[in-house]
Amino acid sequence: MRLRVKYLGIESGRKPVVTLSVDDAAELGIRSGERLRLRFKEYTINAIVNIATKSVRKSVIGVYDEVIKSLQLKEKDIVDVEPASPPLSLQYIRNKLRRRKLNYEEILEIVKDTVAGNLSEVEMAAFVIALEQQGLDLDEATNLTVAMVETGQHLEIDKKPICDKHSIGGVPGDKTTLLVVPIVAAAGLIIPKTSSRAITSAAGTADRAEVLMPVNLSVEEMKRVVGKTNGCFAWGGSLHLAPADDVFVQVEYPLSIDPMLLPSIMAKKRAVHANFLAIDIPTGRGTKVKTIGDADLLAKDFIELGRRLEIKTQCLISYGEQPIGHAIGPALEAREALRALQGYNVPDLIDKAVHLCGLIFGMAGKGDERLARDILKSGKAGKKMREMIGQQGGNPNIKPDDIDVGEHRIEVKSERAGTLLWLDNNLLVEIARAAGAPRDKKAGILLQKKIGEKVKKGESVVEIYSEKATKLGLAEKITYEARPFGVGERMEMRIRDVKEIPIARKAFILER
Amino acid sequence: MRLRVKYLGIESGRKPVVTLSVDDAAELGIRSGERLRLRFKEYTINAIVNIATKSVRKSVIGVYDEVIKSLQLKEKDIVDVEPASPPLSLQYIRNKLRRRKLNYEEILEIVKDTVAGNLSEVEMAAFVIALEQQGLDLDEATNLTVAMVETGQHLEIDKKPICDKHSIGGVPGDKTTLLVVPIVAAAGLIIPKTSSRAITSAAGTADRAEVLMPVNLSVEEMKRVVGKTNGCFAWGGSLHLAPADDVFVQVEYPLSIDPMLLPSIMAKKRAVHANFLAIDIPTGRGTKVKTIGDADLLAKDFIELGRRLEIKTQCLISYGEQPIGHAIGPALEAREALRALQGYNVPDLIDKAVHLCGLIFGMAGKGDERLARDILKSGKAGKKMREMIGQQGGNPNIKPDDIDVGEHRIEVKSERAGTLLWLDNNLLVEIARAAGAPRDKKAGILLQKKIGEKVKKGESVVEIYSEKATKLGLAEKITYEARPFGVGERMEMRIRDVKEIPIARKAFILER
Repeated sequence: MRLRVKYLGIESGRKPVVTLSVDDAAELGIRSGERLRLRFKEYTINAIVNIATKSVRKSVIGVYDEVIKSLQLKEKDIVDVEPASPPLSLQYIRNKLRRRKLNYEEILEIVKDTVAGNLSEVEMAAFVIALEQQGLDLDEATNLTVAMVETGQHLEIDKKPICDKHSIGGVPGDKTTLLVVPIVAAAGLIIPKTSSRAITSAAGTADRAEVLMPVNLSVEEMKRVVGKTNGCFAWGGSLHLAPADDVFVQVEYPLSIDPMLLPSIMAKKRAVHANFLAIDIPTGRGTKVKTIGDADLLAKDFIELGRRLEIKTQCLISYGEQPIGHAIGPALEAREALRALQGYNVPDLIDKAVHLCGLIFGMAGKGDERLARDILKSGKAGKKMREMIGQQGGNPNIKPDDIDVGEHRIEVKSERAGTLLWLDNNLLVEIARAAGAPRDKKAGILLQKKIGEKVKKGESVVEIYSEKATKLGLAEKITYEARPFGVGERMEMRIRDVKEIPIARKAFILER
Repeated sequence: MRLRVKYLGIESGRKPVVTLSVDDAAELGIRSGERLRLRFKEYTINAIVNIATKSVRKSVIGVYDEVIKSLQLKEKDIVDVEPASPPLSLQYIRNKLRRRKLNYEEILEIVKDTVAGNLSEVEMAAFVIALEQQGLDLDEATNLTVAMVETGQHLEIDKKPICDKHSIGGVPGDKTTLLVVPIVAAAGLIIPKTSSRAITSAAGTADRAEVLMPVNLSVEEMKRVVGKTNGCFAWGGSLHLAPADDVFVQVEYPLSIDPMLLPSIMAKKRAVHANFLAIDIPTGRGTKVKTIGDADLLAKDFIELGRRLEIKTQCLISYGEQPIGHAIGPALEAREALRALQGYNVPDLIDKAVHLCGLIFGMAGKGDERLARDILKSGKAGKKMREMIGQQGGNPNIKPDDIDVGEHRIEVKSERAGTLLWLDNNLLVEIARAAGAPRDKKAGILLQKKIGEKVKKGESVVEIYSEKATKLGLAEKITYEARPFGVGERMEMRIRDVKEIPIARKAFILER
């Protein structure tokens, strides 16, 4: 069939998409979501079909920007179209729905087509949901990891050994990486750290680091910075180390599922050729992993998967029932981390950083966490941080007090005296996000108290910062609808009465 | 945030969709697939967000046709937007992914939002895939059936009892309904039959009946025809009896899954207030249900679900390893059915029709299949069919030979002498569809032989008809790449050698 091109003036994001009239689609025997093979001059492409009842007339084909580019089309060009078979990977996805284990070649094909945009939303969703419902065994996790690496960029650094650190996330205010990287680099080990921006949290490491220096590094820039300083802070998103993961996230996020936690993390470590990897598993109420038993199971999987990928892996199961340090939100956290690097005491933050460095040093045969504490105390880590900031194009002389935080501020005070008994991680994140974080870098929360500290009646426990008064208002509203902390003499017995069927909601933490 | 309207000139099909620039989306803290609340004058609507890197600039909102209509927008109008919460039904879908049984209110909410277009593709896919992976128990099947009925139109007929017939599909050439309806109606029972068009087959009952008469009846027209003749042939698609089903099919079809088989069928029966229902379960290689044991299990579910819905249900487990009668394709089948109604002997077709009528007559206390055979033989069924054709606006005097079939024709001949040992249902359907069926009504297949008949060398076994020479060529090509029948003295032992890992494909039959 020959159809006349109509520019739609929209892009689909990744996939080549075309729009057909109901009549032409019926004539071709094609349904919405199926594929059409388009030919124009020497160019050929398969595109996914939308069907329009109105906006595209018979004998016309509406084309998205991606198709215009691939086929070099002009308005009113005539293209040849015919029904195209779905990609082989769709057959593999159907087999997965039938509970068949997929082999490496099959997984690779699915991942390739995911990256190339050859699968529709529904088809890709089916793969992710099937994995979530059936679970991945270690073979599939290994194969998926390797396939994600195979379809992305790699970082080749000729120094050895390469160290890395990762947190599965879930604790607000976790700026530990901002300490770990300079400590490890100052010890003479290589740590080309890639980090993500926040997805569900109030700040990702990339968001925090960006307050101090540019993080949109290319692979080449990353190599240069690591060459000079042994370490770096790069935003993973611009590096395309495992681009499939970014696509899968688009399904996982709305559904609150995270079946690819392990492959997603390990792919990025393998792509930088990590030799030694320390993984932080924050554990407890309000984190991803609720019990120490579950944390052990997860650690086992990480270590075993690491072994298969030739990445020596060790895990820290860490206390996660309250934020790390006092600050939540990019600028507030960057300021706190910089202070800690300059000798200011933030006990839980420093403990966690040196525990993780201890694991890395142990694996690399460098020593243990005492070395990490020495490097931090001696100021070597702070100096290393400034070198890295300078090399990445930030101001190496920046002082903590130079870092601006939101000018709109409220204090949330305790209505009674007692001990701070609990902090609600998820609610604190919700408040910080309502205040503008992570997009508004200066927005966030400063805790005046941590669990176990004495609180006077009327004393401030939580301070909220925002760049805009309207957003502060939203954050304040949430705070007064559901209190993010509890003060008293002892834990109260009643968590909640349930008198009718509740709408069960589960807080969801998705970080990469 | 206030944004300027830009018409995109495209429709989404159902869902209200808008396109935001990357900047505005980030400022609003919104990701692709999340929702925005739009306000314009007195109108308010929630829309699903696409994010554009290029086609929509900052401060502009691209709107799909559905949004223009709902908000009565003009180009360059200014709309107020703010992030909107996802619908409650998404929370229920997430809970289903967590393997929780859903109650009626929850299922109803999901079905309502499906029909209203409040769920994104991925969210709706998650519901369908979770049902497929976890299976529905009878409670959920009942609730889903009732929810589908609740969200659609009903047919109110004051005569009783109302009878109905359904085949789960999977056998080509199954024009049984064209006989059952006039036989039942001629017996004085009410049978307001709604049928579907083909999805994966070469003809649906609506496609076949449409060769003889218009089938796009409204609920009112359907009532009128049933009032005059006791029966009708209506296309279900225009009646919106269970509109959610049409949306779910868009997920099921590309993934080759059919988790809602029972609710989808039973919802349409309940919407016409059926009292007695006969269900045909074609069984055997090349059909949906491969073994008699599986057919029994399915029959049990139908009967039990029927009991809960107050529809007395009985099933016919029927032989399905070859087409019914000789004709496949709308016009060829309509012609064969009309001949059978006029006394021409098509033994398997007539047997199947009277078996099903026997079940209905038994439930209605009218008699058994002997009555059905009498009604057919006496010509009363043929007369009733002509009444119905006339009432629906067709030509009541149409003769079988008036029905045109495709003018392009080839014969597929046997290369050896022997007995016809097998016919490949799925391949016959593929050939008929390549020849143009069901869209080209005159395209299809005429079998010259059926299983067990003697075939001479060079004798024609399969005739293919097409309206267009090019399509006939495609059909012929398939025929010679994979033979649709086997002739010999005895079944051959080798079905296929497998010397390397095969790409497992499963034929998929989706009919409604």
